[in-house]
Amino acid sequence: MRIPASPGTHLSAYPIHTTITTRVSDMDGYGHLNAIRLGQFYEEARANFYMQAFDKQQRDTRILVAELTFQYLGEGFWPGAIEMGTGIAQINSSSFLMGQGLFQNGELLGMCKTVLVCTRDGKACPIPDEMRSMLARQSIKTTETA
Amino acid sequence: MRIPASPGTHLSAYPIHTTITTRVSDMDGYGHLNAIRLGQFYEEARANFYMQAFDKQQRDTRILVAELTFQYLGEGFWPGAIEMGTGIAQINSSSFLMGQGLFQNGELLGMCKTVLVCTRDGKACPIPDEMRSMLARQSIKTTETA
Amino acid sequence: MRIPASPGTHLSAYPIHTTITTRVSDMDGYGHLNAIRLGQFYEEARANFYMQAFDKQQRDTRILVAELTFQYLGEGFWPGAIEMGTGIAQINSSSFLMGQGLFQNGELLGMCKTVLVCTRDGKACPIPDEMRSMLARQSIKTTETA
Amino acid sequence: MRIPASPGTHLSAYPIHTTITTRVSDMDGYGHLNAIRLGQFYEEARANFYMQAFDKQQRDTRILVAELTFQYLGEGFWPGAIEMGTGIAQINSSSFLMGQGLFQNGELLGMCKTVLVCTRDGKACPIPDEMRSMLARQSIKTTETA
Repeated sequence: MRIPASPGTHLSAYPIHTTITTRVSDMDGYGHLNAIRLGQFYEEARANFYMQAFDKQQRDTRILVAELTFQYLGEGFWPGAIEMGTGIAQINSSSFLMGQGLFQNGELLGMCKTVLVCTRDGKACPIPDEMRSMLARQSIKTTETA
Repeated sequence: MRIPASPGTHLSAYPIHTTITTRVSDMDGYGHLNAIRLGQFYEEARANFYMQAFDKQQRDTRILVAELTFQYLGEGFWPGAIEMGTGIAQINSSSFLMGQGLFQNGELLGMCKTVLVCTRDGKACPIPDEMRSMLARQSIKTTETA
Repeated sequence: MRIPASPGTHLSAYPIHTTITTRVSDMDGYGHLNAIRLGQFYEEARANFYMQAFDKQQRDTRILVAELTFQYLGEGFWPGAIEMGTGIAQINSSSFLMGQGLFQNGELLGMCKTVLVCTRDGKACPIPDEMRSMLARQSIKTTETA
Repeated sequence: MRIPASPGTHLSAYPIHTTITTRVSDMDGYGHLNAIRLGQFYEEARANFYMQAFDKQQRDTRILVAELTFQYLGEGFWPGAIEMGTGIAQINSSSFLMGQGLFQNGELLGMCKTVLVCTRDGKACPIPDEMRSMLARQSIKTTETA
């Protein structure tokens, strides 16, 4: 799957927003938010996306994570909330690409791309039409400047 | 240390309140919030208490957890926030007892008592006067009915 | 429930042993093993106890944690494994008390007492005879010296 | 950075091995090892790599994670240990690529590629010669078949 060059670097580009309170246990020995723990924030925003974008019926088709890529762009701190932006970057026949941005105090700390595969009975299957149109409604806004 | 029979069973009894967003990763295999993960919520509210109740100078005296007791009174769920109440239940010469209540949707899910010891150079020391008066200002309200 | 004065302070007193490898993510900002994370080690050893002490049939009666008490006696470090000892300290009509010791390099770092309640259909029930005799076989050794 | 097509799919290809015991708390609601928690296993094996491959002096140059990519190839289970393989896949001027394989019962469950950047005073710097030769000694074995 080709990964688009620049998913949203501003929170406003993402259709679905999730606020997460940080915990003292999210910090590592350097006093900033642990790199792996940031993965938990993306996971939480992904779960929130599912709840908002999909109705229950469509969740019957199981969606599996095939690949996760995290980019680290800045250091986060406790205390203070994290703002997550989540949206869809690309839709293929049986898989789609989710893009996420992680912000604290307006600063972009990281981005995540997730390759998700639609499966039925343990095998990849075409994305159902209804799910495809739901995903399309949750696209990340790309603001091209001429 | 004698542990008082009933610390606050209502959020309003606690001087310091902390809101924590739950995470999908806080759930266990039964679909409710994991018992041990609740310990992380108490830890987070305790850290918040320190920040609000103590000024930086007093944090030089190191406060150590000597004993933690969790009572489990109900099951919590994701998604949804947790409301924590934290306050002081008892003050002794070199130690004090912190009481905490964990609430979700107004229901008391658990309580925690923590025995905290004031130390200097690795040994227990008397609680400094200024810290003692700060702790006293953060007492849990006990509403005795005649 | 009366809590016995001294459960096992030596690993050899416990009938069931569990080895857990520590993780760099178990450390807190002070460079030692996080107090709350130690709770995960006790949880892991408790799960291991269930698997070794109970057969599948008896696990149908659901056992709930009613109260957990952790005592902190020393600081643990990463890297290096943790040795856990787990056994039964007391058996009542519908509840029992589990005792655990947490050791690193032969040093006792903490102890945990857990009040566990036997339930059926969401209500406390008498401990079945077969489970009672299984629990009795897993008692913590008390070495009284005259 | 070009990411090589196939880092080691066998544990024997990796110069440094790390054994990690899984925890009941590593499981998600589906009863298998949580995808994000697998990230903790890679982190642990990376820390173990640093300890084995670098001497203390070289750790003065701070190595930062710039990008992490996880591939999910199979489901892991508790209880049971995880075997991690860690090695170096590519060395550039100021960055290098670490490759890792995650195995359970001999089955490859996932792979991780980490782009690591060498920094001094908060800015990317050339990899020191001594570190470069250390990294070269920890290369992943590539078994090309004609």
